[in-house]
Amino acid sequence: MVEKRKPIQVAEAVKRVISNDVMPQKEYVSIEESYGRFLAEDLLASHDVPAFDRSPYDGFAIRSEDTNAASSENPVSFTVVGEIGAGYVFNEEVQPFQVVRIMTGAPIPKGCDAVVMLELTKEISEKEILIKRLFKKGDNISYQGEDTKKGTVLVKKGTKINPGVVALLATFGYHEVAVAKQPVIGVIATGSELLNVDEPLAPGKIRNSNAYMILAQIERAGGKAKYFGKLDDDFDACLAETKKALAEVDMLITTGGVSVGDFDYVPAILKELGAEVLFNKVAMRPGSVTTVASLGDKMIYGLSGNPSACYVGFELFVRPMLRRAMYNAYPHLQKVTATLGVDFPKPNPFMRLVRAKVEYQNGTLVASPSGVDKSGIVSSLGGADCLLLLPGGTRGYEKGMTVDVLLLEDQQGSEWPWDNIVASYK
Amino acid sequence: MVEKRKPIQVAEAVKRVISNDVMPQKEYVSIEESYGRFLAEDLLASHDVPAFDRSPYDGFAIRSEDTNAASSENPVSFTVVGEIGAGYVFNEEVQPFQVVRIMTGAPIPKGCDAVVMLELTKEISEKEILIKRLFKKGDNISYQGEDTKKGTVLVKKGTKINPGVVALLATFGYHEVAVAKQPVIGVIATGSELLNVDEPLAPGKIRNSNAYMILAQIERAGGKAKYFGKLDDDFDACLAETKKALAEVDMLITTGGVSVGDFDYVPAILKELGAEVLFNKVAMRPGSVTTVASLGDKMIYGLSGNPSACYVGFELFVRPMLRRAMYNAYPHLQKVTATLGVDFPKPNPFMRLVRAKVEYQNGTLVASPSGVDKSGIVSSLGGADCLLLLPGGTRGYEKGMTVDVLLLEDQQGSEWPWDNIVASYK
Repeated sequence: MVEKRKPIQVAEAVKRVISNDVMPQKEYVSIEESYGRFLAEDLLASHDVPAFDRSPYDGFAIRSEDTNAASSENPVSFTVVGEIGAGYVFNEEVQPFQVVRIMTGAPIPKGCDAVVMLELTKEISEKEILIKRLFKKGDNISYQGEDTKKGTVLVKKGTKINPGVVALLATFGYHEVAVAKQPVIGVIATGSELLNVDEPLAPGKIRNSNAYMILAQIERAGGKAKYFGKLDDDFDACLAETKKALAEVDMLITTGGVSVGDFDYVPAILKELGAEVLFNKVAMRPGSVTTVASLGDKMIYGLSGNPSACYVGFELFVRPMLRRAMYNAYPHLQKVTATLGVDFPKPNPFMRLVRAKVEYQNGTLVASPSGVDKSGIVSSLGGADCLLLLPGGTRGYEKGMTVDVLLLEDQQGSEWPWDNIVASYK
Repeated sequence: MVEKRKPIQVAEAVKRVISNDVMPQKEYVSIEESYGRFLAEDLLASHDVPAFDRSPYDGFAIRSEDTNAASSENPVSFTVVGEIGAGYVFNEEVQPFQVVRIMTGAPIPKGCDAVVMLELTKEISEKEILIKRLFKKGDNISYQGEDTKKGTVLVKKGTKINPGVVALLATFGYHEVAVAKQPVIGVIATGSELLNVDEPLAPGKIRNSNAYMILAQIERAGGKAKYFGKLDDDFDACLAETKKALAEVDMLITTGGVSVGDFDYVPAILKELGAEVLFNKVAMRPGSVTTVASLGDKMIYGLSGNPSACYVGFELFVRPMLRRAMYNAYPHLQKVTATLGVDFPKPNPFMRLVRAKVEYQNGTLVASPSGVDKSGIVSSLGGADCLLLLPGGTRGYEKGMTVDVLLLEDQQGSEWPWDNIVASYK
């Protein structure tokens, strides 16, 4: 009647999920479309930087030896034999006591070995300047390769492309960028109690919020969401739609239908499909009734119909698979240590993941729940940018205690956050 | 010949920029498209949550008074008169010693005032259960409005829509969401030294990286980028393109052409347009030659051609105007305190903004430069997620000192980060 389920620990659950292979795929997009995507190859410097010896200032390119006798008392006169704008080249060899007017970024002309900044010269005429001090070979020259040597790995494969990475891609001529194909994640909402967002409230009903929330979570994690709509609690309809969806996606998420109530069909559907259930109960709150299964090379996630549980289930179990499918080596949420900003007196038989908000106070992180932690409450989700990790078996937490948190908006990620989680000292 | 410019302090420069009005505009998008946009209105709870008294568990709805005599020794028998799935309503009034099987989320039937969890009942038959203890009125009932009252402001206008906010929008029936129209920011790159990204390197030339970097920065900040291409250093062509671009955008950014070299036309173009120059030199490194002007209700930014200076100029002067144009009340980068991770021995005559990376170490933030800080070096941009703020007039910094940093990827923002910046104690 009531199915008996054995809960497993969070770390074990995540391990079972990521022990499944992913097959990242590469595609090419134009550099204009590359922001926010994940690199499918290491970004290599395709040439030295600078690519040629160049001037870092507006000034005059000189032969340094010509200034050997220069001083305030004995200014030396030079003949201006030309000028080089950035992007141009001076083709002749510069002779003794000749200088070339040079712009920032322009290449050092042949024969010259230093640059004098404009402000340190005295202009006598368009054709003559005075220099009043000694300059050494190499003064104010940016040498070829001094910033970066050709072939250097500048950014690792699997890194999310930020504006700085875009600048590097452009600098090194990557007009077409090899990026990870975005995994397609299907979403099905189940539950006869669900109304569409545009329907008026009715007795006993609530609007379908989980599906839209997950679509946004998929987008935040870097995937491509495909929404298959909202199904009633009808076994045959759910099974048919699940089969249809599986054919079109890389992973599939259902919300609702995972608990042990009479109308919850996910276990039966997984059985009918022949999927291998990795677990169907996790020792955590919220989200204990999360089910994850694999079918061939596809993952099927049965997330709870409860919004908070659904949110947490996505971040813990879907996100790492999604990120791994984009070559990312730090696929989990980044775990950092913070100070608890308020008392949290509830005892935790299981690991508790509390939606919270991080604040920076004098160089330290302080995390406080973003709302009342009652799993039915959606209103605390809006302000959450982290999840407090409160291990099970503790008797509650006090303000000022050290806790671990998982950052939700951070792009750094973590290789494996599930070891050595700070426990309450109570 | 060489134009004399008077540098102003960073805070004063930002103040002059944001003293210009912005005119945010509203538009409606479907909830599926709302992630990442900025709310144009406060998000109000359109009904109580829960919207009706409901069961938080699978169990039986009871009249609590019927359990007054119940105990282990004296289990009380109840008749099961129906069941309610989530989304359904039980229409009759429940009579003494009757119970209704109820699913999580389903409304409490008339006459009942408590719920007994499934595990605490003993099933005798489909029609009869035993209850062995007393329950009180209200036990296991989620009352209408106990989470959120209708009319409550749940999320403020100007907030960036994250997955949790999407869940709230769905819950409260916002199928069409009022969001800020994304300001259109034009980008023009200037400089005869610039190659297109797909062109091979040539003597004296570099590829145009700034334009693509800024397009990504605009996207990260939430705006819509429009690229007008790369122009040679030709006054008439630049002027014509600038006029054309201004007609199509809300703000315009040019990169390059702002220093005092002979081929830098931005000042002349601004004069020709009749724009009011707010400043053309800022006491900071990099980016001292940043120029900002206003023309009617449009801002024109003359950012440096140097990639680092251009990057910083965008984040300091463009981002806040862009965010303000999306109703955002915290338009500047968030400033937080961190510990300097390495020595930074260079003296700072001006405020220095160093591209850096933040790490979390035992609950504290540690910031270290993400590469050699030489303004021509693009390679340090890829790894940067913050800017170190090193005020001018200092003699260098040592590892372990307290510094302020501006977070680049953070979405929280700051109302005004430019007061009380931590100075070196040297």
